Amino acid sequence: MKFTGKWLMAALLAVLPAWAVAEDGYELWLRYRPLQGPALVQLQAGAKSIVRTGADSPTLQAAVAELKRGVAGLTGREPALTSRIAPGALVLATAASAPAGLALPWAELGAEGYALRRLKLQGADVTVIAANSDIGLLYGSYAWLRAAQTGADLASLDQRSAPKVKLRMLNHWDNLDRHVERGYSGASIWDWWKLPEILDARYTDYARANASLGINGTVLNNVNSKADSLTGPWLAKAAALAGVFRPYGIKVYLSARFSAPVELGGLKKSDPLDPAVRAWWRAKADEIYKTIPDFGGFLVKANSEGQPGPQDYGRNHADGANMLAEALAPHGGVVLWRAFVYAPEAKDRAAQAFDEFQPLDGKFAPNVIVQVKNGAIDFQPREPFHPLFGATPKTPLALELQITKEYLGFATHLVYMGPLFEEVLKADTGRGGTVARVVDGSLARHPLTAVAGVANIGTDRNWSGSQFDQANWYAYGRMAWDPDLTAAAIARDWAAQTFSTRPAARDAIVDLMLASREAVVDYMTPLGLHHLMGTGHHYGPAPWVDNLERADWNPTYFHRAAKDGIGFDRTAKGSNAVAQYAPSVARLWADPRSTPPELLLWFHRLPWDHAMPSGRTLWAELVARYDRGVATVADMRRRWAALGPHIDAGRHAEVSAYLAQQEREARWWRDACIAYFQSVSGLSLPAGARPPERSLDDYKAQRFPYAPGKG
Amino acid sequence: MKFTGKWLMAALLAVLPAWAVAEDGYELWLRYRPLQGPALVQLQAGAKSIVRTGADSPTLQAAVAELKRGVAGLTGREPALTSRIAPGALVLATAASAPAGLALPWAELGAEGYALRRLKLQGADVTVIAANSDIGLLYGSYAWLRAAQTGADLASLDQRSAPKVKLRMLNHWDNLDRHVERGYSGASIWDWWKLPEILDARYTDYARANASLGINGTVLNNVNSKADSLTGPWLAKAAALAGVFRPYGIKVYLSARFSAPVELGGLKKSDPLDPAVRAWWRAKADEIYKTIPDFGGFLVKANSEGQPGPQDYGRNHADGANMLAEALAPHGGVVLWRAFVYAPEAKDRAAQAFDEFQPLDGKFAPNVIVQVKNGAIDFQPREPFHPLFGATPKTPLALELQITKEYLGFATHLVYMGPLFEEVLKADTGRGGTVARVVDGSLARHPLTAVAGVANIGTDRNWSGSQFDQANWYAYGRMAWDPDLTAAAIARDWAAQTFSTRPAARDAIVDLMLASREAVVDYMTPLGLHHLMGTGHHYGPAPWVDNLERADWNPTYFHRAAKDGIGFDRTAKGSNAVAQYAPSVARLWADPRSTPPELLLWFHRLPWDHAMPSGRTLWAELVARYDRGVATVADMRRRWAALGPHIDAGRHAEVSAYLAQQEREARWWRDACIAYFQSVSGLSLPAGARPPERSLDDYKAQRFPYAPGKG
Repeated sequence: MKFTGKWLMAALLAVLPAWAVAEDGYELWLRYRPLQGPALVQLQAGAKSIVRTGADSPTLQAAVAELKRGVAGLTGREPALTSRIAPGALVLATAASAPAGLALPWAELGAEGYALRRLKLQGADVTVIAANSDIGLLYGSYAWLRAAQTGADLASLDQRSAPKVKLRMLNHWDNLDRHVERGYSGASIWDWWKLPEILDARYTDYARANASLGINGTVLNNVNSKADSLTGPWLAKAAALAGVFRPYGIKVYLSARFSAPVELGGLKKSDPLDPAVRAWWRAKADEIYKTIPDFGGFLVKANSEGQPGPQDYGRNHADGANMLAEALAPHGGVVLWRAFVYAPEAKDRAAQAFDEFQPLDGKFAPNVIVQVKNGAIDFQPREPFHPLFGATPKTPLALELQITKEYLGFATHLVYMGPLFEEVLKADTGRGGTVARVVDGSLARHPLTAVAGVANIGTDRNWSGSQFDQANWYAYGRMAWDPDLTAAAIARDWAAQTFSTRPAARDAIVDLMLASREAVVDYMTPLGLHHLMGTGHHYGPAPWVDNLERADWNPTYFHRAAKDGIGFDRTAKGSNAVAQYAPSVARLWADPRSTPPELLLWFHRLPWDHAMPSGRTLWAELVARYDRGVATVADMRRRWAALGPHIDAGRHAEVSAYLAQQEREARWWRDACIAYFQSVSGLSLPAGARPPERSLDDYKAQRFPYAPGKG
Repeated sequence: MKFTGKWLMAALLAVLPAWAVAEDGYELWLRYRPLQGPALVQLQAGAKSIVRTGADSPTLQAAVAELKRGVAGLTGREPALTSRIAPGALVLATAASAPAGLALPWAELGAEGYALRRLKLQGADVTVIAANSDIGLLYGSYAWLRAAQTGADLASLDQRSAPKVKLRMLNHWDNLDRHVERGYSGASIWDWWKLPEILDARYTDYARANASLGINGTVLNNVNSKADSLTGPWLAKAAALAGVFRPYGIKVYLSARFSAPVELGGLKKSDPLDPAVRAWWRAKADEIYKTIPDFGGFLVKANSEGQPGPQDYGRNHADGANMLAEALAPHGGVVLWRAFVYAPEAKDRAAQAFDEFQPLDGKFAPNVIVQVKNGAIDFQPREPFHPLFGATPKTPLALELQITKEYLGFATHLVYMGPLFEEVLKADTGRGGTVARVVDGSLARHPLTAVAGVANIGTDRNWSGSQFDQANWYAYGRMAWDPDLTAAAIARDWAAQTFSTRPAARDAIVDLMLASREAVVDYMTPLGLHHLMGTGHHYGPAPWVDNLERADWNPTYFHRAAKDGIGFDRTAKGSNAVAQYAPSVARLWADPRSTPPELLLWFHRLPWDHAMPSGRTLWAELVARYDRGVATVADMRRRWAALGPHIDAGRHAEVSAYLAQQEREARWWRDACIAYFQSVSGLSLPAGARPPERSLDDYKAQRFPYAPGKG
């Protein structure tokens, strides 16, 4: 008897115990569920065998294994690995190993890019996955599987892609005790205690997921780091992980504690100009590279929020970064030096990174990248792009995005961050190009470029704490590879791979995702408001907090709401932080009339009755935005409920429960903020607006001990 | 076309992508993998349909769902639920709903027991699962599935079982921030932050696994508790879990902080004789039962290791326990009051619980159970049974076992604790019966009885941190139901359900498991030594530690090794703790000649040249035992390696890696301890003994920061 895969898969899906096909989110976007109809026929015809033309390598083995796994899942039949080019073959070819007759634009693929093309080769109709390197072939294999999963026309496939950014990194804020700072998806997936001996199978799946997006670097430990991570036993653990990741093209980096020479080396100080300190770091780098020959480098948070740094010795950030760069340079390592700094005495926190770093432009060693958050405060639902972008033409800047939703409802709220990432990447710096052109190095012709995403990955079965938070990891990775992709296109790919290839269901999911980011801005921080969240937990609303140790930790510092108005004046009349932007941008944002409503209260303090473009007063507009945010979440719930027939029951019910909570909490944000703003403004609600559910005192009395992810 | 399940399962196992059938340990012993050969034929014939005779209930739905799932997995065909008694049916019947003609010894089954019997009913050859309650039917369904999985002869099935202990509990030492004290398998599975709204599917699988063993109570939070867990928001979270567990017969309990009336109620004190304090607890109990109508009760750690308690006000443990009992009694709740207490000033920690609790016998309210650890120190690899067992005839005692391996190599070492549990249960107290007869209440005719196991459950995919640690959860649950089961029989069931039903493979696994506990005793603490572990982490050896804040935290306090000998003198010449045992036992253990070698240095301090029954000196015997421990682990590795063909590759490789680490660390324990004992005794090694690998200073210099599970 002979059975087609299609027949067999259908039969077994009907009879298999539930556990075997239950959807729990662990497989992420690499689910490879059976195709049906024409897509199945087309894939069967195009993936009959796999042909490897070059010499074997661990990376090629990973590519072949993934192709086998993917095709087996999608069609029910695992293609064999052969060396014979036959009709329907998937041919993996590098420029060096390419079979006779295969002409491709090899040069354009670069070191990591790939081409996917359906063509005739030696008389046979085959699909070629081509690249100049094995890692390019692995990326191409994942791209081909993505095409197969998302319904691309495999019969006429002709794609080409090369990454625009060199270092595409995840930053794990994972502590050595497995607590994840600002992590909302369980504990750290690094089981440090059992490393290096015990290698959890999850490490490999982590590498697969990242390689499928093109992520090629991972910083294992928190930027608020312990020196221990640089000691021998911990380097051995990092080396074990590096060994798992290596075939997938992922390099390991470590956050380095600036005072390690004191804490580990017994030196009296960690002054970057002290020869003994420099020697200690050189020796430490040598030791690291002996353990991890392809070690990526150091990420450093220095002189920021209590971390040690060069300023402790009267030196500047360039002095500190260059010392580490000197130690790493002989080995090819890089320093990612964070620009997230603020001193207690300064008058506007939003202006400080620029003030400290812009004057250092040109002072950094060639293997230093300054890593800058997307905005100047701290990963708020919306911030204008950071004024450093474009302002340091002699210094490559990495863009740091936060995938984990510290200020956006943790894992509980459905917020697709693709539009947030896209917004910052496409922002025009006024200095010759967008943020994307700064970050990809094209504007100032930097060869060393980087993007970093603060990971939302933990031990939760679904990795990211919720099904939809996986989309933020995915979107980050895709945009790190190509900052010009749109959030919408990425959402389409993700939804098709993760939930349903049926266009109607897929598009309904995408619509819901695309609405979600503006919704969270509306119900948390509309019209340019920012930093209104509760102390410590950073989850719920607390615009009333005014008693913290530092002025610029208080929400009242940022919103400045009072009887006469609301907003932070960053024009020349105020902190003048707006002047840090290029003149064309600064001019626009210095005037409330030309400032987009979305950023209005970021740059301006205005009376409550300020007239908005909508014709409403500022106060009425504020309430309307809060209402719109809550309404959008309610609408997201309805849209999701309607998707029931197209989604497996387990994930549908789980997302439904999360959305129900999000709607309650969107209302909480709206009501608590409106109640508070009323209390300072004395204004009554606009006609027809629903009064807050509870009293302001009730909202103030709420406490959230044991919130996850605290620092 | 029509296919047998067997054919289909075989076909699909061949073609399914690896992920669908990968063994990662998540399914525990409820794997339901396809049977083959005669066992398959027999099961197919005996499970054609499921007949429910009584009214539907959530518990019956759980039973039917598990039977369907199990039979579908084992045979490839899911039986239908019908009301027609036909040949090959599985008939679920209670005494009340039993079909005409079904005669069974109903009375003997009690409230929770079950019978499984193959018989003719209304002319049809059926299997009856019978009980007096729906929960009995659920337990019976799991027992029948266990019989099916382990190769019992289903054609002549005739089993009957009723639990001998009333409360069969897990104690979770889980903190509200998801850290698990002494937990080595990831974070707490209670995702408190997302509760009560979000119910992880894992909660249901937790309930299934426990119900399959007969566990019927779970204490959700750490005995070192925070008062917060008794506040409204946290009670709502506990109630949500209780709702998941209820159909599975599992009641929720909470650890109660004795000072909660002060911390939550604003009272000045928590004196148990203060009427205001009593009123506070009564009101709190009323509130809890409004939220969780079937709440089980409180577990309390009081006046122990810094926890508040009645002694803070000059009251005793009975005063404290009875106050809580009074609050719970109207609702049917119980108090589990722990006897693990020790004060800094006392001369022998082993004697203190007895000294404090034995005089209170008869003073406790009827709904109080005193919960006693298996031994008088703290969950060491081997301790003599606790002297309280049998010494408080008027007070029911719960046996507290530690499933999590705080002192036995965490999750990393393979140690099957069945023999440890069996050893204490079968120990003759000398007061009329064994510990089992004390615990099951038969000795003193107590109706209220309990066993508690400190859980080894966490977010690790395999639940327990290693594949083999699942066996300790399993063995605990089986022995809690029936303290007379043997560790060997339980290991056979577990190995068959978890790894292989092939008798040769199964028995090889059992042999390895049964050898493992004596091995850990030998390589960690042979001959009655105890408490030799490192400070804080409790993992590796540190017999040299002598500088801790309290004398009885120091290993040197416990081993007392010096030039002239080694051991703790607990005879009349020493602390005389031995006198706490019944005279027949005390007499035996007061004399080194009649003390079993396994307990020798627990009770006696002896010269290094003391002659052992083996003919060796004490010193030579000590070294020989250390060597035996290391050799046994090496042998376990060889046995496991030979099992390769019978075990799935993933789990085989994982266990192999763990065993390799265990062998290295067994050697570490042996070498570090021998090096230390040599340093104090000045003795040279016995002829032929291998010298320690490294110097004593090397062992002393090792540090283990960030060890998991610290308190």
